[in-house]
Amino acid sequence: MHISEITHPNQLHGLSIRQLEEIARQIRERHLQTVAKSGGHLGPGLGVVELTLGLYQTLDLDRDKVIWDVGHQAYPHKMITGRYNHFHTLRQKDGVAGYLKRCENKFDHFGAGHASTSISAALGMALARDAKGENFKTAAVIGDGALTGGMALEAINHAGHLPHTRLLVVLNDNEMSISPNVGAISRSLNRVRLSKPMQFLADNLEEQFKHFPLFGESLTPELQRVKEGMKRLAVPKVGAVLEELGFTYMGPVDGHNLEDLITTFKSAHTYSGPVLVHVVTTKGKGYAIAEQDQVGYHAQSPFDLTTGKAIPSNKPKPPGYSKVFAHTLVKLAENNPKIIGITAAMATGTGLTKLQEKLPKQYIDVGIAEQHAVTLAAGLACEGMRPVAAIYSTFLQRAYDQIIHDVCIQNLPVFFCLDRAGIVGADGPTHQGMYDIAYLRCIPNIVVMAPKDEAELQRMLVTGVNYTEGPIAMRYPRGNGYGVPLMEEGWDGLPIGKGEILRNGDDILLIGYGSMVYPAMQTAEILSEHGIEATVVNARFVKPLDTELILPLAQRIGKVVTLEEGCLMGGFGSAVTEALSDNNVLVPVKRFGVPDKLVDHAKPDESKADLGLTPSQMAQQVREAFFSKQPSVVS
Amino acid sequence: MHISEITHPNQLHGLSIRQLEEIARQIRERHLQTVAKSGGHLGPGLGVVELTLGLYQTLDLDRDKVIWDVGHQAYPHKMITGRYNHFHTLRQKDGVAGYLKRCENKFDHFGAGHASTSISAALGMALARDAKGENFKTAAVIGDGALTGGMALEAINHAGHLPHTRLLVVLNDNEMSISPNVGAISRSLNRVRLSKPMQFLADNLEEQFKHFPLFGESLTPELQRVKEGMKRLAVPKVGAVLEELGFTYMGPVDGHNLEDLITTFKSAHTYSGPVLVHVVTTKGKGYAIAEQDQVGYHAQSPFDLTTGKAIPSNKPKPPGYSKVFAHTLVKLAENNPKIIGITAAMATGTGLTKLQEKLPKQYIDVGIAEQHAVTLAAGLACEGMRPVAAIYSTFLQRAYDQIIHDVCIQNLPVFFCLDRAGIVGADGPTHQGMYDIAYLRCIPNIVVMAPKDEAELQRMLVTGVNYTEGPIAMRYPRGNGYGVPLMEEGWDGLPIGKGEILRNGDDILLIGYGSMVYPAMQTAEILSEHGIEATVVNARFVKPLDTELILPLAQRIGKVVTLEEGCLMGGFGSAVTEALSDNNVLVPVKRFGVPDKLVDHAKPDESKADLGLTPSQMAQQVREAFFSKQPSVVS
Repeated sequence: MHISEITHPNQLHGLSIRQLEEIARQIRERHLQTVAKSGGHLGPGLGVVELTLGLYQTLDLDRDKVIWDVGHQAYPHKMITGRYNHFHTLRQKDGVAGYLKRCENKFDHFGAGHASTSISAALGMALARDAKGENFKTAAVIGDGALTGGMALEAINHAGHLPHTRLLVVLNDNEMSISPNVGAISRSLNRVRLSKPMQFLADNLEEQFKHFPLFGESLTPELQRVKEGMKRLAVPKVGAVLEELGFTYMGPVDGHNLEDLITTFKSAHTYSGPVLVHVVTTKGKGYAIAEQDQVGYHAQSPFDLTTGKAIPSNKPKPPGYSKVFAHTLVKLAENNPKIIGITAAMATGTGLTKLQEKLPKQYIDVGIAEQHAVTLAAGLACEGMRPVAAIYSTFLQRAYDQIIHDVCIQNLPVFFCLDRAGIVGADGPTHQGMYDIAYLRCIPNIVVMAPKDEAELQRMLVTGVNYTEGPIAMRYPRGNGYGVPLMEEGWDGLPIGKGEILRNGDDILLIGYGSMVYPAMQTAEILSEHGIEATVVNARFVKPLDTELILPLAQRIGKVVTLEEGCLMGGFGSAVTEALSDNNVLVPVKRFGVPDKLVDHAKPDESKADLGLTPSQMAQQVREAFFSKQPSVVS
Repeated sequence: MHISEITHPNQLHGLSIRQLEEIARQIRERHLQTVAKSGGHLGPGLGVVELTLGLYQTLDLDRDKVIWDVGHQAYPHKMITGRYNHFHTLRQKDGVAGYLKRCENKFDHFGAGHASTSISAALGMALARDAKGENFKTAAVIGDGALTGGMALEAINHAGHLPHTRLLVVLNDNEMSISPNVGAISRSLNRVRLSKPMQFLADNLEEQFKHFPLFGESLTPELQRVKEGMKRLAVPKVGAVLEELGFTYMGPVDGHNLEDLITTFKSAHTYSGPVLVHVVTTKGKGYAIAEQDQVGYHAQSPFDLTTGKAIPSNKPKPPGYSKVFAHTLVKLAENNPKIIGITAAMATGTGLTKLQEKLPKQYIDVGIAEQHAVTLAAGLACEGMRPVAAIYSTFLQRAYDQIIHDVCIQNLPVFFCLDRAGIVGADGPTHQGMYDIAYLRCIPNIVVMAPKDEAELQRMLVTGVNYTEGPIAMRYPRGNGYGVPLMEEGWDGLPIGKGEILRNGDDILLIGYGSMVYPAMQTAEILSEHGIEATVVNARFVKPLDTELILPLAQRIGKVVTLEEGCLMGGFGSAVTEALSDNNVLVPVKRFGVPDKLVDHAKPDESKADLGLTPSQMAQQVREAFFSKQPSVVS
């Protein structure tokens, strides 16, 4: 059977190990070819090919439900659930998504993109199943990195307390999240991998107890407890932890041995309570280059399959925002030992690996644990350090209460650097950084800013590091800057709450925020071609908003446009309309930004065009709204 | 020495056990008298009197720092850090706070109110200390309930990975959070309490190993591991878990035996890495009535010390919102087995104890684990259940990413019921439910509503339970309703996104949201006395906003006032100004709500008066803004 014939995962039933191994080979081939061509996640999927096939052969996927954590390791799952033939469209507009979406396929029972959610979701389904008197299996597949996220531990704690709720957790232990894992749980897992399970002891335990001088044939209840504890010695320590938390622990199993996997999963299905199967896998399995560089090949831009080298793009690109951020942070940190860069398992993505290399003592990776990262930063700030928490906009949502409760209420000088703010492209709705302007600006005490380009990012980084009066946040987009000259000297910060005028014109006022300042300038140029002269303001700060600059301009010019790369509800434009309204400046306003809907995966430019956010589209809309003969007024 | 003479906790140094016991007695007396008179948290503080005194006698509080989790158990701490003589002002305006605030006292090193933050904060301070080359001790005191919160587990995981970072975690194990704890960690702790630690085995371990047939004198590395594991049998299992996670575990210690506590803490201070001391305490210790009803006496309104009975208020009050919520939810759940009420350790506060009593199968308490609660609800919704997540507005901040990523992006019908939304009174800034309107309305797919009174809460509860198209949220305030007749029949929901007109007038349009609708009506009555006739709209929904109703009214009447009990930045009034601006209805708007600052603890009416939110204040401001001879316009 060729995998292209598989449209339903139950077709795996009855296949021999040899046949499954052939399917595995086909999956890896397609996986490699697709990601080499279009980019995407490589290592995670290659590591779970056998895990997926083995698990699915023991389930009835018409009834049973598998919940994949994060979703970037679900490519093999996608290929055996009817998407093999479309797989070449991976991460492209209208193509197969890079993460999981319930609406994409009926076997995608729970969407994902962020880590650590799968056990909670699977337990919810299991409890619903039992409430309805139904009888299907639910399995969560979670990586060892994701297991350190607080909500996964909350879910383990809850599930372990429900001995009669049937739930399978498959721990995909590849020793990595994206960067090498940190934390005690990871180390504990690691010990398992270094020493073989002491099965011989377990096998002979009953017999040996009889010879142990303390015990003898019949055991008192207290000694019974000792005996139980001794049994645990036969399973790895992490297993003992899980057993203490109420789970039946099985493993570790070789995650690339289909026979072992199938035997173990079959056995796991016989339990009527929570079971955890510990599967040891190799990230990037089957592609030697990726096995050897597991961080580098977690996700890839298009690359040459033979050499593993990235295919250079046609023209040289300006440096990315993350790179400029990291480069500048290192420079600042070299001169200020109080600066501590913090990442939550995103050292590569945020560029903080650079800080780790140069100034390891000023670098902390807490693992997938954004909540802890933020309150740890608050603790550091209490002691006069300058914590710089570099967390993607979308992941900082995880630490929202910590931002409010631990940082802003206490007015502590923590500096939040929100990478990937705005439209993120191929990663899709779970990763869009759409909400940070709205969710941050409503909190007292915090300063919220966004640079127009990579040089202003440098200025704002200086601003944030020097600002000691309270919390401050900077958002910046995914991708490359404009190639403007970087700051080499004159490392001054910016005045808090002050914008700048970039262009003067009497016909309309365009106020851009962050990544939409250059598009505002481009829009102004197009408008100018039509005889409409715009004043363009770079707001720099949404909080405090520069009302001293904006209000008189708005009053004088009488027509206002706001431009932002984020949700319109409660966002930057909303802040401007609040200010105008509060100050009784009653002028028409058009707000450009992301309307109240999800933005699907696509190239960022495609998304912006869909949303009407290209300069030419915006210029057209401005002309229609403000300069057509029949202005639209509500009836 | 009498405690009133203690102004610095170092004065405890050198006191004998007998003297400390006398101080303990004085603390309990004051604690009881104060809370009996003014209300507040009772059981938590009474349980940690000896823990506090014992710990502080072993520390130099001029250098060392103790971080108290949650803060409601820090009353003994407050009394020995200079606040004994002011303690009668507890939870009153300008008096001693019910939780912890850094600005209140130099020994309050980290503010708190929400659970599970202390280990992260203490670890941050410890890392800062080491970076600065300083040498003080940091201790986090955390309850067993708070330990199940995900961020506490994230912090344990991180700290356990840092063997050379000196950190003391004191586990205050009273078997309770507010309700009896749930979860596997709690059960594991519980086992420790049921069986004595098997110290005899530990004491003789080396000797006994020699006689064990398998081992002999010299051990292979693998057998060494077995031996280490056996040593662990001598400590409770929860200790084994913590040791596996890198902590040195000590305990359990009797939390009311000062001698044992001091000995243990002294010993703990000799370690140079992470140590956890497990202290077993009795909540409400020293007040028999509270010891016997630990849930009931966690926190109390004023009560009679002899009988323990609440002192009845002078006049009968209408039922509280939480009570009406719970009563109605039970009625609905009786007729709909798909309804599942979910609480995160707040069964009493949300009223869900009522559901637990009547329909235990339709009730889930996940413990202090809001993130898991929300994604569990998402899992239940996937399977067609109707999860009703009853979580305080302020605590739902903990699950913000789960609301976005697991519920709203997937458009799953989870019903969020946000209790304590708005001004909460004596609990202060950490508990104010100020941000939910702003942080929810920016998310796509969700419906957001608020009832004007307790009868409308019932209608909205029906609305939410019947709404299957996606997520929906309802906010309602702390405290009592208006005594309006409750719904006994005609259990219809409300049309989504539709407001209602409550009063007609041509001079001004007042649009109230939720708890500010009645004040809007009262404001209108006062304005009427001055010849100004207002139209009053009950908006009901901030999302979707009833623009069909509001826009033509605003256009016709020409003056708009919005009223909400939440942050003005991005809140309800902001949504109205967005709608007006987007639709080119250029009319002056005055927005009433909570300005961009923290609201301190006080009676709710006091806070509202401070914020200018009483009807007479608002009427006055409306007259000045709209009906004075010189309207204020920006220059």
